Amino acid sequence: MLFAIKEMVRAMNERFEKQMNFLLELDKVKEIYRQNYIADKSRKENDAEHSWHSCVMAFVLAEYFDKDVDLLKVIKMMLMHDVVEIYAGDTYCYDEAGYADKAEREMESAKKVYGLLPEDQRDEFMSLWREFEEGGTKEAYLCAILDRIQPTMLNYATDGISWLEHGIKKEQVIKRNKTLLEAGEPISGYVRGIIENAAERGLLK
Amino acid sequence: MLFAIKEMVRAMNERFEKQMNFLLELDKVKEIYRQNYIADKSRKENDAEHSWHSCVMAFVLAEYFDKDVDLLKVIKMMLMHDVVEIYAGDTYCYDEAGYADKAEREMESAKKVYGLLPEDQRDEFMSLWREFEEGGTKEAYLCAILDRIQPTMLNYATDGISWLEHGIKKEQVIKRNKTLLEAGEPISGYVRGIIENAAERGLLK
Repeated sequence: MLFAIKEMVRAMNERFEKQMNFLLELDKVKEIYRQNYIADKSRKENDAEHSWHSCVMAFVLAEYFDKDVDLLKVIKMMLMHDVVEIYAGDTYCYDEAGYADKAEREMESAKKVYGLLPEDQRDEFMSLWREFEEGGTKEAYLCAILDRIQPTMLNYATDGISWLEHGIKKEQVIKRNKTLLEAGEPISGYVRGIIENAAERGLLK
Repeated sequence: MLFAIKEMVRAMNERFEKQMNFLLELDKVKEIYRQNYIADKSRKENDAEHSWHSCVMAFVLAEYFDKDVDLLKVIKMMLMHDVVEIYAGDTYCYDEAGYADKAEREMESAKKVYGLLPEDQRDEFMSLWREFEEGGTKEAYLCAILDRIQPTMLNYATDGISWLEHGIKKEQVIKRNKTLLEAGEPISGYVRGIIENAAERGLLK
């Protein structure tokens, strides 16, 4: 009996150690910089900030989406969707060459980072990440919306410096944000307005 | 009838505009720097990153806490608890002078930032923030744990540079982290181990 308790404590400690190692490794997400800038234009945004901001948006804008969506699942997905970039790096959404092997690079990275966790949690988070990537559920759909509307807001607030730096065309932004443009009002109108205004001001080619 | 629809659209647009203004203002959280460093010691951590990391910890470590806790509420509280620092600034947890008027400064700031939202959301988020500050519920308790264990993990990972910079004493860390030390295993043991080890290595006075 005493042995069993010792074993249990040891197993729990091993489990907790794995969890804390994973949580510490995730700190690297704060050093993965995206192409968009933060609102005051002082620097680019990192993945941790993007994930945080997108999750706040989920709560504030939830009323415009399906009432049956599992918001806790959305947040879980959204908080961790970019941790695969720790080893795979950020792939700019308008980088066609980068997108060619994005899926493969990110799968390797996902196995590595989620593999730090105890098996049950590894499987749960891997499965959430796959759902995010594959889409098709209500929760993945809302994540796709958040993942796009957050940088769109910042690109517009920063007078399109990121678009200008990369010579992005209006058609590219329309294609990338198709989901937003079809999301219904007020989201669609907001994004349409941003794209039209940015094009008129020459922020988009 | 036509008039009513127009009014409704106008009201919805006003509501959405308020929500988007709030969400853009929140970007400033990314520029509020805390006293602890990120794990690679390259710079201090900001509030958005801290909130993101604490929320991920909530999911990974949830099993060690009350199963009846409303995790969605915890995340909502945790994601936004630091937005009051946009105007009030970060108050270092060992800054006694700063703590003297912290509550007052943060209440002013909370009214200002949450006041950007439509009234119903302003009331909801103000109330969550007050619950976080006042404690007393299961959700506020878990938030207090997360708010402390996240920087403790980083302070230890960075060889206590933040503690050393401020000449922090072992007793101060014990006092600040009383909640963690009483949280039960494995949390308490982890924190106790960190404090003992840090003191032995001279990272804490």
